[in-house]
Amino acid sequence: MNIKELQDKLQRFTDERDWDQFHTPKNLVMALSGEVGELTEIFQWLTEEQSKAIVADVEKMKQVEEEIADIQVYVLRLAHKLGVDIERAVEKKMRKNAEKYPVHLAKGNAKKYTEY
Amino acid sequence: MNIKELQDKLQRFTDERDWDQFHTPKNLVMALSGEVGELTEIFQWLTEEQSKAIVADVEKMKQVEEEIADIQVYVLRLAHKLGVDIERAVEKKMRKNAEKYPVHLAKGNAKKYTEY
Amino acid sequence: MNIKELQDKLQRFTDERDWDQFHTPKNLVMALSGEVGELTEIFQWLTEEQSKAIVADVEKMKQVEEEIADIQVYVLRLAHKLGVDIERAVEKKMRKNAEKYPVHLAKGNAKKYTEY
Amino acid sequence: MNIKELQDKLQRFTDERDWDQFHTPKNLVMALSGEVGELTEIFQWLTEEQSKAIVADVEKMKQVEEEIADIQVYVLRLAHKLGVDIERAVEKKMRKNAEKYPVHLAKGNAKKYTEY
Repeated sequence: MNIKELQDKLQRFTDERDWDQFHTPKNLVMALSGEVGELTEIFQWLTEEQSKAIVADVEKMKQVEEEIADIQVYVLRLAHKLGVDIERAVEKKMRKNAEKYPVHLAKGNAKKYTEY
Repeated sequence: MNIKELQDKLQRFTDERDWDQFHTPKNLVMALSGEVGELTEIFQWLTEEQSKAIVADVEKMKQVEEEIADIQVYVLRLAHKLGVDIERAVEKKMRKNAEKYPVHLAKGNAKKYTEY
Repeated sequence: MNIKELQDKLQRFTDERDWDQFHTPKNLVMALSGEVGELTEIFQWLTEEQSKAIVADVEKMKQVEEEIADIQVYVLRLAHKLGVDIERAVEKKMRKNAEKYPVHLAKGNAKKYTEY
Repeated sequence: MNIKELQDKLQRFTDERDWDQFHTPKNLVMALSGEVGELTEIFQWLTEEQSKAIVADVEKMKQVEEEIADIQVYVLRLAHKLGVDIERAVEKKMRKNAEKYPVHLAKGNAKKYTEY
């Protein structure tokens, strides 16, 4: 995914419609949160096993795909508005996590997952 | 961002730590939702103007950048687990939105934003 | 609101439909989160001023009222399932906050709101 | 829980600290959403069984109780600000759901839970 290109395209889409006035960081965070709510509703009553099996359900996967797209769009918009380089941010976070959870300590140790 | 590459790297990171067992779609949706909650907390009391001005605050922007990274990581993980091609999904959604909100009707028309 | 009574009524409603099997704490947290997402979608593009003015909009207030009800229902269900006494928990939290933010220090000091 | 009394107490608490200016409906929705995010983080990696068993974990239950209190407080604040009578709203919703899901149709029918 060429992030910069997609973000420019989204910015153009927004400008052409005079919608940029609504896209303050605060509002975009809420919009992102609303979309995650919709994704949550798809999964809320499923068991973990059913949540894996959803990949075989064409109709539901269409919804899931749309929600993931909506979420990704708002992440792109928000990062664009705030001047955050998503790729750099992710790579930085991955390095940080690699240091925080070294393999020899983390392996078979679900502390992160059970102690929160 | 080479999405496929990042996703492979994240998968490796998870496998090396034996954490893949926790990464069911249901759990990843919750983790994504939790991270969006953290981002929300940064913006909840800010006015829209303050939410724009946050870009000048180095300390807060570090937090924002980390939260965006966390969110992006879980979107990548979830899409990977469900076999959703994020780039394709976003482009599909953008085409759909372009049809749903043609410029000549949408321009200066905030219906989408005021009628929900 | 007689919380205990409402919770018993909700439990009866759930039992009569054989739905209790779905109401694990994990699922109820997701359901609560999904409903908060719906409420968020109502407010996401509004300015703070517009969010106050919404009280004059009968149609939107019907939606808002329904979402608040949905959220409250899941809070009641979750607390019931986990044996949390909501009233006691709220009063405890209010005492804790009163100690954490004494009036003479907090007055005119939005630190809590600006430092997060 | 005497809702009206609690809401008055919370209003007094807010006024004494000059914090009412931050409590616009939009901001309160975000604050509610942020607290639900914190609750979500407690449950995100737990299996449904573990989420039930959490009641036996005194330390974790303290956190859960605090999060439920925070969530309830913001629901009370939001309803107060918008003039929504929570109790009436919940009872109305329960009547609506009773009509929507009559026992003889809903029993043993998880349609609501599997079709979303």
